[in-house]
Amino acid sequence: MAGKINVGVIGAGRIGRVHAENLAYRIPGAKLVAIADVVAEAAQKLAADLQIATVVQDYRAILADRTVDAVVICSSTDTHAQVITDAAAAGKHIFCEKPIALDLAKIDHALAAVQKAQVKLQVGFNRRFDPSFRRVRELIAAGSIGTPHILRITSRDPAPPPISYVKVSGGIFLDMAIHDFDMARYLMGSEVVEVYAAGNVLVDPAIGAAGDIDTAVTTLYFANGAIGVIDNSRQAVYGYDQRVEVFGSGGMALATNKTPDSVVQSDAVGVHAAKPLYFFVERYAEAYVAEMREFVQCVREDKRPSVTGVDGRIPVVIAYAAQKSYAEHRPVRLEEVDRR
Amino acid sequence: MAGKINVGVIGAGRIGRVHAENLAYRIPGAKLVAIADVVAEAAQKLAADLQIATVVQDYRAILADRTVDAVVICSSTDTHAQVITDAAAAGKHIFCEKPIALDLAKIDHALAAVQKAQVKLQVGFNRRFDPSFRRVRELIAAGSIGTPHILRITSRDPAPPPISYVKVSGGIFLDMAIHDFDMARYLMGSEVVEVYAAGNVLVDPAIGAAGDIDTAVTTLYFANGAIGVIDNSRQAVYGYDQRVEVFGSGGMALATNKTPDSVVQSDAVGVHAAKPLYFFVERYAEAYVAEMREFVQCVREDKRPSVTGVDGRIPVVIAYAAQKSYAEHRPVRLEEVDRR
Amino acid sequence: MAGKINVGVIGAGRIGRVHAENLAYRIPGAKLVAIADVVAEAAQKLAADLQIATVVQDYRAILADRTVDAVVICSSTDTHAQVITDAAAAGKHIFCEKPIALDLAKIDHALAAVQKAQVKLQVGFNRRFDPSFRRVRELIAAGSIGTPHILRITSRDPAPPPISYVKVSGGIFLDMAIHDFDMARYLMGSEVVEVYAAGNVLVDPAIGAAGDIDTAVTTLYFANGAIGVIDNSRQAVYGYDQRVEVFGSGGMALATNKTPDSVVQSDAVGVHAAKPLYFFVERYAEAYVAEMREFVQCVREDKRPSVTGVDGRIPVVIAYAAQKSYAEHRPVRLEEVDRR
Amino acid sequence: MAGKINVGVIGAGRIGRVHAENLAYRIPGAKLVAIADVVAEAAQKLAADLQIATVVQDYRAILADRTVDAVVICSSTDTHAQVITDAAAAGKHIFCEKPIALDLAKIDHALAAVQKAQVKLQVGFNRRFDPSFRRVRELIAAGSIGTPHILRITSRDPAPPPISYVKVSGGIFLDMAIHDFDMARYLMGSEVVEVYAAGNVLVDPAIGAAGDIDTAVTTLYFANGAIGVIDNSRQAVYGYDQRVEVFGSGGMALATNKTPDSVVQSDAVGVHAAKPLYFFVERYAEAYVAEMREFVQCVREDKRPSVTGVDGRIPVVIAYAAQKSYAEHRPVRLEEVDRR
Repeated sequence: MAGKINVGVIGAGRIGRVHAENLAYRIPGAKLVAIADVVAEAAQKLAADLQIATVVQDYRAILADRTVDAVVICSSTDTHAQVITDAAAAGKHIFCEKPIALDLAKIDHALAAVQKAQVKLQVGFNRRFDPSFRRVRELIAAGSIGTPHILRITSRDPAPPPISYVKVSGGIFLDMAIHDFDMARYLMGSEVVEVYAAGNVLVDPAIGAAGDIDTAVTTLYFANGAIGVIDNSRQAVYGYDQRVEVFGSGGMALATNKTPDSVVQSDAVGVHAAKPLYFFVERYAEAYVAEMREFVQCVREDKRPSVTGVDGRIPVVIAYAAQKSYAEHRPVRLEEVDRR
Repeated sequence: MAGKINVGVIGAGRIGRVHAENLAYRIPGAKLVAIADVVAEAAQKLAADLQIATVVQDYRAILADRTVDAVVICSSTDTHAQVITDAAAAGKHIFCEKPIALDLAKIDHALAAVQKAQVKLQVGFNRRFDPSFRRVRELIAAGSIGTPHILRITSRDPAPPPISYVKVSGGIFLDMAIHDFDMARYLMGSEVVEVYAAGNVLVDPAIGAAGDIDTAVTTLYFANGAIGVIDNSRQAVYGYDQRVEVFGSGGMALATNKTPDSVVQSDAVGVHAAKPLYFFVERYAEAYVAEMREFVQCVREDKRPSVTGVDGRIPVVIAYAAQKSYAEHRPVRLEEVDRR
Repeated sequence: MAGKINVGVIGAGRIGRVHAENLAYRIPGAKLVAIADVVAEAAQKLAADLQIATVVQDYRAILADRTVDAVVICSSTDTHAQVITDAAAAGKHIFCEKPIALDLAKIDHALAAVQKAQVKLQVGFNRRFDPSFRRVRELIAAGSIGTPHILRITSRDPAPPPISYVKVSGGIFLDMAIHDFDMARYLMGSEVVEVYAAGNVLVDPAIGAAGDIDTAVTTLYFANGAIGVIDNSRQAVYGYDQRVEVFGSGGMALATNKTPDSVVQSDAVGVHAAKPLYFFVERYAEAYVAEMREFVQCVREDKRPSVTGVDGRIPVVIAYAAQKSYAEHRPVRLEEVDRR
Repeated sequence: MAGKINVGVIGAGRIGRVHAENLAYRIPGAKLVAIADVVAEAAQKLAADLQIATVVQDYRAILADRTVDAVVICSSTDTHAQVITDAAAAGKHIFCEKPIALDLAKIDHALAAVQKAQVKLQVGFNRRFDPSFRRVRELIAAGSIGTPHILRITSRDPAPPPISYVKVSGGIFLDMAIHDFDMARYLMGSEVVEVYAAGNVLVDPAIGAAGDIDTAVTTLYFANGAIGVIDNSRQAVYGYDQRVEVFGSGGMALATNKTPDSVVQSDAVGVHAAKPLYFFVERYAEAYVAEMREFVQCVREDKRPSVTGVDGRIPVVIAYAAQKSYAEHRPVRLEEVDRR
């Protein structure tokens, strides 16, 4: 495809703004042409900030625009599957935020629509585009640490979401750990076959009252025999804690947090350095640009995105298994929750 | 007790040599007076190196010596309980390497003998005396990280022991992870109530053939609701990997490995630093001195050691639970394996 | 000034491209409208890449365009003073790469033109906008390290420039260390009063043959009594080495290099991490955006840039003093080379 | 020499205690047999602590004892040369704290006595035995960083000595920087040929009133063309700051400070680590053992110590040159102060 592709952003919330700004300023191959949000003011505000002319409340208006090549779906999770299905039917290429849906049947329906329409679909597992995690993956793929034996992922948010959000989020495994389940597959290059999830309510009793937990330690068995463990917390007071470590027969690769500066201050009390970047917008700023750059490039050059619909589906299955494991207090195999 | 105490070392193997050298050169309050080993040459060699006159094959000769105040038991694990019992009966204060025994009944019998004789017993959980782990414990005890939520321990040996040793070791949980179970209790200040152990044979099939595993990821539930995870491997090619991390409501404290130097070398390939110290003799050199210093001080000043017989017993119970969990592929509560 | 300002870039070389790309994609308040270069192909290539319509060979065509609000001068150093003078006369606001000129009289002439025209002038000391160096400055300004006593700057390039460039560069002090002289003033908040420069040809004899040195260690006395030292090399094989350290009565603040990732790899050989980012385009990518953002904001909001014409002049004086010190093998006071 | 050598310690002050304790407990090849101090109480206290029978006020009593093989001279600097001369005449091997004397003629007289008596003399440049500095030296010697171009040494004490000591210390160059001058020679494997010393009184005006400075930045030219810089301060509030860095054609090796633990604490304020070890007794504890172990080994095996009398002399010459440079405000060549 010569020239820029025209892109519409559907959903003008926090992550919609991230993608819209990147499309407007950071991705030379794309032109942001339209913004949709069911909340008209949100769409108008974002469009005004970025000087985008087309603002709509109903995303179908964007789908009806024949000059639009692709859409970026940032609306609420419960709408993703329907928007994907509609966008595919309209022949638009699709970038969709994770998760595709909280329901496997809906995911499969959406993926079928994508398959039928032969449009591209990339799922927003942005962390795969973080330079440090990518480097760990490269080291593993290159055999630099030998055969992987143990995976450790630490993934802790700086603060829990509002309880209103917790209630509709699908729970810690589908909402938060899903990123880590994807990271586990990405780093190890092997599928998860069994999950054991321990968890508790330690951060805020209100999260427990909402039917969720806020602290989890999840053990994964991989098809290749390796073992992984993910620890999640909804609240790390020192900021977004995102670390991975892969240990293997030939060594270890680990990626630590990213900080706003490299300054070390020594005084009579101790030696001090900056906290990690606050949250995903800051930590993964580069990764959001890189994933959108790849999506736009795939559309322009008719290539397959590296994060596909299936990559969007499997972490949901793992999350299901984790939920069941926690509920039933026993290890759960993935085939127990996905009889496809 | 005024003046130095007289100490006999029972067992002249690798760890016996460590303690003997420390007693000879590093602990002003103690005088190493005798060395015993069933292998006469081993005892003679060590005694010659340290210029100790009394060398015996049968440890009971040391127990019979009324001038000996205390013994340091470094013989093979299967002898510990009997030597403790005999030493207690002889009125000697006792420092015993871990584990006390692989059998709870034997441990309870030995502890009863100590209790009856009113002698001091310190168990050799040397890692508690590592300055970094001790500092983490102090931070937690001081409330500097708030209420603990998640504990992570990485404990990997540089190379597996001989298969002949693996066969009699009691298995990875009793032989190796037992140190980590003690560390977990020490750091968290709360008891473990349930264990889930995942594991595999990834390092060497011969370890599997010997009935053991070489890689383990063990999840712990603590009485206070916190969750811990320990990952073990019998072989880290980069050296002894001993790290702990405690995450809580107010922050995180982590302790990393110790290196032989602080040199950073940059060249056209990358930036390079030293590997961790090779194994326990190097990594815990200071800790071995510190634990023995405490033991000698407790004997001299009639104080209670900070690592007691009960501290020697509980990690064995946790190891039992881990073994059962791995064998039965389910979480196991400690009371299932310790119906005392 | 409401709306975006129109900016022309003069000089389409390496640094011209950096600024043009940032103006095109990263600075919402600016619109890049024209590119000039005496080498027509260079201007055309850059304009085509960024889809800019106006391309000229003679920068005066840009100055003649009444819709242009500001120019960014990235042409060769020997043209800076003349372009500044012309741009000021045309009423354009000016961002100029360092150094303004290699000749103090020319600098003073250009600054007088700026003064007379009452346009804004910002000099491209990009390192002041590096988040880590900025943080060090903030710590010093906040008194966090007390009264500064010792400043250390390490500034080493990854590879020397072509000998053809060395010959016209003005020498290591005016071409390379000038950034460090500015950094010294910026961090310390005090003026340099005396310089002693040691140096040698150690990297490449051809640099010596061209009349320059490639290695320098320069001592600075500040008006406040503090002492600074800068070490420069034209070739650090491990990449761009840019570190600062300020030590004072209350402690120390230091900023280390920036790396492409945070990955640490351990293997049987050692522990390995990434080299620093290769050179200024990579290391100061954010800083280039930030300085241009400030310039555009100053123009739009009629504010005074934080890096002024005088800030462009003083490091040239320090460089003169360093040259004289090296040549005469003695400490040189700034007033010896600047009798204004 | 079979068996242990008998050693007497002359001078029971702070450093005398360090050496005496090491000889008593850490050096199997030596037996500490006597302690001398002009202050009888000091000698008695130290001897009592270490259970040494022979305590004298006049060191000549130790020299007269034919069973004594070697002496360790830790008395005040002004006595070193005389004690060396007497000890050599008595045929004792000599370990002497630095500096040998503040006067070159005295040094030469003492070295001549050593030469004539053919006894061994090791000077107490303990830092050469620090594992990190030693590792840097090894890397350089192995060519791992190519040809050395730039040396940087940071050497800052945690607190200034009493003013009474400052007055008799010989000044910052002879008293403090002398260690760094030795380190420079040790690391670079090349002799210093010229010195330029900048300095000031920034820590305490009383130090200035006593005729000394408390802050210095000293540039060194080496015979091989490399350039070095040492920065000294009498007061780093965060503890003993002892770092070296050597940069060369093939890379860089740097050694950072040593800390009491490896704990990193993260909280809502920042990320915190331990300060460097407080002062030389803590930082160089291992190095003091290692240097004495080498001395004892050299005596026992009739080998030449790696730190000789000439190594004790040259840093004094460099210190003279630095003093002269600071006083005359110009670079000074070593031959100006040492016309031997």
